[in-house]
Amino acid sequence: MLKLKAYFMDFEPGIPVVKLNADDATELGLRPHDRVEVRYGKTLKTAYIETTCTMVKPGYIGLRKESRKYGVTQGAIICIRPAPRPDSLGIIKKKLDDMELKKEEIYTLIKDIDQNRLTDIELGALVAAIYVQGFSERETINTTKAMVKHGKQITWNKECIVDKHSIGGVPGNRTTPIVIAIVAAVGLTIPKTSSRAITSPAGTADTMEVFCDVSFTPKQIKHIVNKTNACLVWGGSLDIAPVDDKLIRAEYPLSLDPEGQVIASVLSKKKSAGSKYVLIDIPMGDGAKVSRIDKARNLAKKFKLVGRKLDMHVECAITKGDGPIGRGIGPVLEAIDIMEILEGKGPKDLREKSIELAALMLRMTGHGDEEKARRMLDSGLALKKFNEIVVAQNGNPKMDLLKMLGRYKESICADTSGTIEQISNTAICGIARIAGAPKDKGAGVYLYFKKGQKVNKGEKLFDIYAEKKHKLKNALNRANGCRVYHIGPKENMLIEEI
Amino acid sequence: MLKLKAYFMDFEPGIPVVKLNADDATELGLRPHDRVEVRYGKTLKTAYIETTCTMVKPGYIGLRKESRKYGVTQGAIICIRPAPRPDSLGIIKKKLDDMELKKEEIYTLIKDIDQNRLTDIELGALVAAIYVQGFSERETINTTKAMVKHGKQITWNKECIVDKHSIGGVPGNRTTPIVIAIVAAVGLTIPKTSSRAITSPAGTADTMEVFCDVSFTPKQIKHIVNKTNACLVWGGSLDIAPVDDKLIRAEYPLSLDPEGQVIASVLSKKKSAGSKYVLIDIPMGDGAKVSRIDKARNLAKKFKLVGRKLDMHVECAITKGDGPIGRGIGPVLEAIDIMEILEGKGPKDLREKSIELAALMLRMTGHGDEEKARRMLDSGLALKKFNEIVVAQNGNPKMDLLKMLGRYKESICADTSGTIEQISNTAICGIARIAGAPKDKGAGVYLYFKKGQKVNKGEKLFDIYAEKKHKLKNALNRANGCRVYHIGPKENMLIEEI
Repeated sequence: MLKLKAYFMDFEPGIPVVKLNADDATELGLRPHDRVEVRYGKTLKTAYIETTCTMVKPGYIGLRKESRKYGVTQGAIICIRPAPRPDSLGIIKKKLDDMELKKEEIYTLIKDIDQNRLTDIELGALVAAIYVQGFSERETINTTKAMVKHGKQITWNKECIVDKHSIGGVPGNRTTPIVIAIVAAVGLTIPKTSSRAITSPAGTADTMEVFCDVSFTPKQIKHIVNKTNACLVWGGSLDIAPVDDKLIRAEYPLSLDPEGQVIASVLSKKKSAGSKYVLIDIPMGDGAKVSRIDKARNLAKKFKLVGRKLDMHVECAITKGDGPIGRGIGPVLEAIDIMEILEGKGPKDLREKSIELAALMLRMTGHGDEEKARRMLDSGLALKKFNEIVVAQNGNPKMDLLKMLGRYKESICADTSGTIEQISNTAICGIARIAGAPKDKGAGVYLYFKKGQKVNKGEKLFDIYAEKKHKLKNALNRANGCRVYHIGPKENMLIEEI
Repeated sequence: MLKLKAYFMDFEPGIPVVKLNADDATELGLRPHDRVEVRYGKTLKTAYIETTCTMVKPGYIGLRKESRKYGVTQGAIICIRPAPRPDSLGIIKKKLDDMELKKEEIYTLIKDIDQNRLTDIELGALVAAIYVQGFSERETINTTKAMVKHGKQITWNKECIVDKHSIGGVPGNRTTPIVIAIVAAVGLTIPKTSSRAITSPAGTADTMEVFCDVSFTPKQIKHIVNKTNACLVWGGSLDIAPVDDKLIRAEYPLSLDPEGQVIASVLSKKKSAGSKYVLIDIPMGDGAKVSRIDKARNLAKKFKLVGRKLDMHVECAITKGDGPIGRGIGPVLEAIDIMEILEGKGPKDLREKSIELAALMLRMTGHGDEEKARRMLDSGLALKKFNEIVVAQNGNPKMDLLKMLGRYKESICADTSGTIEQISNTAICGIARIAGAPKDKGAGVYLYFKKGQKVNKGEKLFDIYAEKKHKLKNALNRANGCRVYHIGPKENMLIEEI
């Protein structure tokens, strides 16, 4: 062990890094990128080391200024020692070998992730292991509980806290703001935290950011919810699921989202956010995350079981997911769909799905039915509620969304006449992301035709919007290089002649 | 893209990192730990970014001084852009989904690894995927060829270049220096490159380092081999298998070494080192990497097949691997065994195995048989050759090895009388590593008894050596906490009563 003096430096490595003089590193038998346990008082963290001969003097440790949040002052004594091999390594190996993990093994794993004890290599192997071998029901329940234990929890003075979540995978599908507006207009409390897009062209948080702020402290959120019955905020700043955030970072590059991990991720956040009633939207169909009804039912069963074990009432809605929902794909384009629906217009599929999901939430809490949900929308009460939320989140509901669209636009037209047999979710997502979504809020895809509709050769199938010219070009290349719309001759039952 | 001026800084991050001013990073839409492509002239590398507001001025890029090896000078113009998503991600996902990779996919993967395009998370998922799903013969062949392509190659003016390799997993088993001495004494050319220990208490390179230097340039190695017919050097400094080194780093934390990866790793290095004849030692038995004869035969078949596809003559020796070989485990202790055998004494199992392996190499090249191998050892010619090699590698063959042993020592004695039924490879390795091997060269385990021998209660089973007191204590705790020796009543066929 070495005692070193804290020396604040101005650097942002994006991963936990401390800087040591090369001599001190050698004294501990450490090489660059080895890991150390860093202790200050009761605070214990694990970090990679970077060494230098001159930028940090022997006897000192280079720390980010942010370390001050732990009470560290310039020159304070910091103890470091080589990080021991984490117990989780054997546990990850066990999962790779397809063995079921015991409760205490899962708690060890989640604790090690929370304390940054695992390297990126180890995290990569872990998410791969969970992806390939899966989690049993028991493993999923224990993972969910362990994740709740390692996050902050929000408590409410009200009884009927409701929430919803979509497992995603379907472009558009931005039901959440509409559902929340309806349900909150009825009087239920729905403090909705959402994620940003991971692999999709927009997450609910990305889309809401078009209207207003989405990053708030728990205290601010309580204030917003007390005022409006609801909020539509980004969950990432709340620290309610720090472990999940770390796992998602590891799942992201390969777009891995194994079932057990998804259930634990969703339900631990709902539990930590204080929800009692949760509706899960499971889009199903070709090109959705879940392609078959039996798998969707199985997933729903597990969601309900794990929910019950965590004292939550969970219901699942298996919904049509074999094509995009709504017309806009990308933050601003989806915001436009939402606003139109709240104003009584807008794409019918997104409108009906939102009403049906809201109705399920009203029914599971004994607060109404589809009729009531529809009335909230048609009467303008849902719009009024949505605008209230936007204002409470420092936004302006009267903004001109059309002006926020990307200034570069190209249309893709049908090269044949016929009936739309299929629209590829993957292709649409890919094009919208290449066009710049979700980072460029005005980028994305606007669809003119949906599955089952007839189209004539030369008619516009979809527009691509981009904020940057080269991104539009790249998105166009992708659109021309892959099959987005599958157009077949009308009413033809023959799929292929071989 | 941004053009920045090179600014040399004194830092060793252990992974590829460049430092940017936070404003420049924002300009590129990048956050800390995002990845950039860094281009200088024709040199293209991928690196993580660290940002700072003060340590690097806007318009500059902080580089390690080592960048000078690419010709970069202070103030030189460096182009950076966000690193594109590597094609390998889809390929890794495909392997996770248990699909066979095509030739071009494997070449893409190996190229991306070579160019540092994959993050640690992605590498972790890759080795996990190969571990769980395995490689087909075709995948193994293509991986081997792709690895050869991405490394430097050594060529020789001689015809009969031989080599050997043990797949490892058995403590002690330091046959290589003895085999090389015998074979080179006969007159064959054997430029042996070895690895350092990854998960074991010593690799051949660690043990040879007790006698002499092991890090040489290809030019120096040619000089040594021309002089002595052989060398016993560390392969890591030769850059003949840069991709393999990167994969091994990712396999290390979880001790993953999937079969296809092992074959590609071994044979690509042999090919790059210019070998024509290769003998693979496959230790087999309880506690070895390969536990059953059918698996060993299968592995041998694949080694031979892949070797043939790369124009090498590969033979395999399936050897006893159900317990440690030799008496010493750890660099100095193994060096002592080697020296004793070369001097005509030493542990019988290690001596006989070395003779048998050497004989196989003589036979496959038409240069002799077991009789001849034994004569080399008994006549002292092998010792003479070994000393020649040590001298050529800047060592002193007359050093006092006993003085290099760790100064802290404890003995573990039998708590019952009987016959040694089993010695646990894993336990022995664990104890030796905790005692400090391979880093502390004088640390390790010295065995007094082998499988099948009779022991009386109270007799010493093994000694633990350590250079540091606390390491000896930890190793003792491990030794007392796990079953190292299994001692049964003599000639008892009953294993267990249930």
